[in-house]
Amino acid sequence: MSSIQYDAIHNGLTAFQGDAIAQYMRTDFMTLPDHLCVGEARDRFISQLSLQDIPGQLFVVADKTLRGVLSIKKLLQEKDLKLPINHLMDNCLLRVKPDAERADVVAMLAQRELDVIPVVDKGELVGCLTMKEIVHLQEDDVTEDAQLQGATLPLEKPYLDMTPWALWKKRSVWLLLLFVAEAYTSSVLQHFEESLESAIALAFFIPLLIGTGGNSGTQITSTLVRAMALGEVRLRDMGQVIRKEVTTSFMIALTLGLAGCFRAWMMGIGIEITMIVSLTLVCITLWSAIVSSVIPMVLKRIGIDPAVVSAPFIATLIDGTGLIIYFKIAQYFLGLN
Amino acid sequence: MSSIQYDAIHNGLTAFQGDAIAQYMRTDFMTLPDHLCVGEARDRFISQLSLQDIPGQLFVVADKTLRGVLSIKKLLQEKDLKLPINHLMDNCLLRVKPDAERADVVAMLAQRELDVIPVVDKGELVGCLTMKEIVHLQEDDVTEDAQLQGATLPLEKPYLDMTPWALWKKRSVWLLLLFVAEAYTSSVLQHFEESLESAIALAFFIPLLIGTGGNSGTQITSTLVRAMALGEVRLRDMGQVIRKEVTTSFMIALTLGLAGCFRAWMMGIGIEITMIVSLTLVCITLWSAIVSSVIPMVLKRIGIDPAVVSAPFIATLIDGTGLIIYFKIAQYFLGLN
Repeated sequence: MSSIQYDAIHNGLTAFQGDAIAQYMRTDFMTLPDHLCVGEARDRFISQLSLQDIPGQLFVVADKTLRGVLSIKKLLQEKDLKLPINHLMDNCLLRVKPDAERADVVAMLAQRELDVIPVVDKGELVGCLTMKEIVHLQEDDVTEDAQLQGATLPLEKPYLDMTPWALWKKRSVWLLLLFVAEAYTSSVLQHFEESLESAIALAFFIPLLIGTGGNSGTQITSTLVRAMALGEVRLRDMGQVIRKEVTTSFMIALTLGLAGCFRAWMMGIGIEITMIVSLTLVCITLWSAIVSSVIPMVLKRIGIDPAVVSAPFIATLIDGTGLIIYFKIAQYFLGLN
Repeated sequence: MSSIQYDAIHNGLTAFQGDAIAQYMRTDFMTLPDHLCVGEARDRFISQLSLQDIPGQLFVVADKTLRGVLSIKKLLQEKDLKLPINHLMDNCLLRVKPDAERADVVAMLAQRELDVIPVVDKGELVGCLTMKEIVHLQEDDVTEDAQLQGATLPLEKPYLDMTPWALWKKRSVWLLLLFVAEAYTSSVLQHFEESLESAIALAFFIPLLIGTGGNSGTQITSTLVRAMALGEVRLRDMGQVIRKEVTTSFMIALTLGLAGCFRAWMMGIGIEITMIVSLTLVCITLWSAIVSSVIPMVLKRIGIDPAVVSAPFIATLIDGTGLIIYFKIAQYFLGLN
């Protein structure tokens, strides 16, 4: 007599690594052989119940091959105890593979209401994800994204368990990469040394201009990266996203341009520098919006997690390019070469 | 005869607003009156099963007052059909109030394994959270945190449904606040105008120094804010966090100081400026670490969501103060007043 299998169906899980969902799936779930009748299946189900987790449905298998799913409601409410369960079961349309990427599964699940998902490898049922596993999956995905968004490599352990040395290793990689990229700003400023010397007031606004460009870009990427993780925004929405962001940032640019005008006037800087600062704010904000809405989608397209587009990443990118915009505008208005 | 109540127990939910969990709880759950016996309760349970959701446990009530919880396993496996269910039920220790804050409930749940939580108002059972509601709760919390971390007010609707005008409103508030705070950098630079004129090379390193300070601070806040949202880090861990961050940032500071040395040497800047740049990098990194680890915890302490400590927030804070550190060090080494 075959029986409900309530044991681990482990088969070579050590082969899966990294973000694969194999490491999240549970293997101690109930299955019903497809030749059981309702009465037999019901007795097995009740006798094998665990204390906490009652699945909404059970997997029906032939040997280890997934045949379908049987809802507990149908199993408990059916009057005909002799009916074979394969007459009651439904097809199981959604399956995931054990080496599926965590982020992909999370995006898929965010758009559906599912309480149990079979993990199937070459037709064979090797595990399943219940709501509890789905919650862990999502939590880990969010934590990884949050850390990437802060420009640090994801931590494998809870924060308090990390040693300073381990934190140093996770952080110094990105920090040095960003340092190298940001070093470019020194070269830009050195290049414009003459302009700077002839109008030292230009230097006063450097942090304000590039900082504001970075901030407005960060607002876009953080919203977009999260919407992409939830599956709300897909690659095919790219045109819509760019149109929306360009329109929005045009309004933002005008707002900031006015604020810049007011600030430069407050400092008693001449009309020319005031105009240069305001115009630069408008241009940097628009430039930042385009960069920030395009890059996450391009990365997604080429298979890189868009969460790496962190605030420091955007800030660094805008700092160098923003300075070029600033000094080009300044040279034009001040008649420098 | 009383019966399993499988209907909405709505009582004045419209009174709860905002982030209260009342808006997440479901009200269409099963309850069992406490005077039922096992046989009656089992029949009611099976006949009232819904298609998808099988809770791991049912709530036992007297009138509407929560008395305890009964696990489905016990209900289905008990042999004595005449046994009153209040002999089988367990106490229900964990309850939440309908006006509990979402973020607090999420932090509490991240530390436990629960599949259903009763929502109780003055002893009366008004709703419950099953795994599905818990998932929504967590998703919304994470989305809000992600948006706050990007320095934008949280969006109430999916990104693609937001109009540019609505996005402008959500973004311009923080952007203008940050602009005002960042405007302080212009005053700092104006104050040090003479130093700047006598050593224009100092200007070349402004974006690099303040950018790097902002980046290293962002790494800390993003990790810390997420760890606090998960409940991994609590207020009582503050001492441990600060010790960990100061040690780590000391190593980071030395790493960046060396990188700065190398960069200034590459540009053929004199030995004095090279030394000033390296020393400033060390000081800014340490300063940034202290600020970034203390502020999120202080905000939490005074009841503000630490997720508002975004990368732009830290960058803006470090920009102004970092410039003061830079020019004070420069004045000392260059013998300026």
